Amino acid sequence: MSDTGAPARLYDYERDPAAIYRQSFAIVREEAKLDRFPEDLREVAIRLVHACGMPDIVGELSWGGDIVSQAKRAIGSGAPIFTDVKMVEHGIIRKYLKEGNEIVCTLDDVRVPVLAERLGTTRSAAAVDLWAERLEGAVVAIGNAPTALFHLLERIAEGYPKPAAILGFPVGFVGAAESKDALAENPFGVPFLALKGRRGGSALASAAVNALAAGLPEERAT
Amino acid sequence: MSDTGAPARLYDYERDPAAIYRQSFAIVREEAKLDRFPEDLREVAIRLVHACGMPDIVGELSWGGDIVSQAKRAIGSGAPIFTDVKMVEHGIIRKYLKEGNEIVCTLDDVRVPVLAERLGTTRSAAAVDLWAERLEGAVVAIGNAPTALFHLLERIAEGYPKPAAILGFPVGFVGAAESKDALAENPFGVPFLALKGRRGGSALASAAVNALAAGLPEERAT
Repeated sequence: MSDTGAPARLYDYERDPAAIYRQSFAIVREEAKLDRFPEDLREVAIRLVHACGMPDIVGELSWGGDIVSQAKRAIGSGAPIFTDVKMVEHGIIRKYLKEGNEIVCTLDDVRVPVLAERLGTTRSAAAVDLWAERLEGAVVAIGNAPTALFHLLERIAEGYPKPAAILGFPVGFVGAAESKDALAENPFGVPFLALKGRRGGSALASAAVNALAAGLPEERAT
Repeated sequence: MSDTGAPARLYDYERDPAAIYRQSFAIVREEAKLDRFPEDLREVAIRLVHACGMPDIVGELSWGGDIVSQAKRAIGSGAPIFTDVKMVEHGIIRKYLKEGNEIVCTLDDVRVPVLAERLGTTRSAAAVDLWAERLEGAVVAIGNAPTALFHLLERIAEGYPKPAAILGFPVGFVGAAESKDALAENPFGVPFLALKGRRGGSALASAAVNALAAGLPEERAT
């Protein structure tokens, strides 16, 4: 650790974290077309754009079933948050989870490789089976694997407990868009928020959780 | 954990992880314009596109200073990998780090808040000062904070040891594009790879590390 002071200011950039957040949200509000969203979804949309730097994603967001109030209620009551990858877990800002909600990622559970083999699917999908007992009323945030989302929907179809909300942000070229279409068309009445198409990722999945947990507190901070 | 077998196949999707990887890389090769890259950068570019679902990012990649061979040599010799956020750490596929390279994120170090206060900057930037002693020949992967990248460049300007490679993927609206421009114009001769503009993120930063560590081994797996 250096004992020297701040480095010479070689570049002109904003160093104040509160100002960075405020300026950033202001740019998002200016550039993103938020008119299409119900009032309670706007802060969520803003936080998603903030996380990825792409205002145009708002045109690809889909949602259904009273997602904001259901997810807020679940998080506010301390429900667990299930994720497909550790990256989502580490993108969630824990101080916003006032009830100390557990964030659960079962991908590295020792039972998963054998289970994946037995089920003939990916480890990400098999890991979903380990959520069963606590899925009722939980929040699910998928930030990587289309197979995890497809598998979850198939399990719900055959009687798994329903989560309070599914945040669908699988990313990539094989199955991602299709898995989010399946989520949007789910006949199980599970509230959802998803980014259609190939884009997605763990930063968006965690941003969705952060927004539903706390909105945009940094916008009002001094 | 369910004792039942695989769920009824409600959706038609690829469940074989090797096939998912192969199909995905094949789509990227088809859609991404890879001609502009030197041979040794193509697999890196493919892995980056794979990580974000956006073939058009290849037009915004910038690089310099023999980045691929320098980064490969550093990783292959067991050099530490410094990151600004835990999400990057968790996106790195550890089995590809054959020398068991340490991945170091100092953001949560107890000294950081006080240091940030004293330096008048963000915690992400202050955390960089804790890398100093081991920075020589290391790999730096920035997946979130523009201030961390600016601060690192300012410290190098005043005499910090030079890393072997800087992978620049800050994301967002305030300083991200500018920090990557500064990296691309760095007069210190540090090899770099960066995604210009607002896009970036931890998934890309870790994908860059994974590609430089191992290329695309999944493309050849059966």
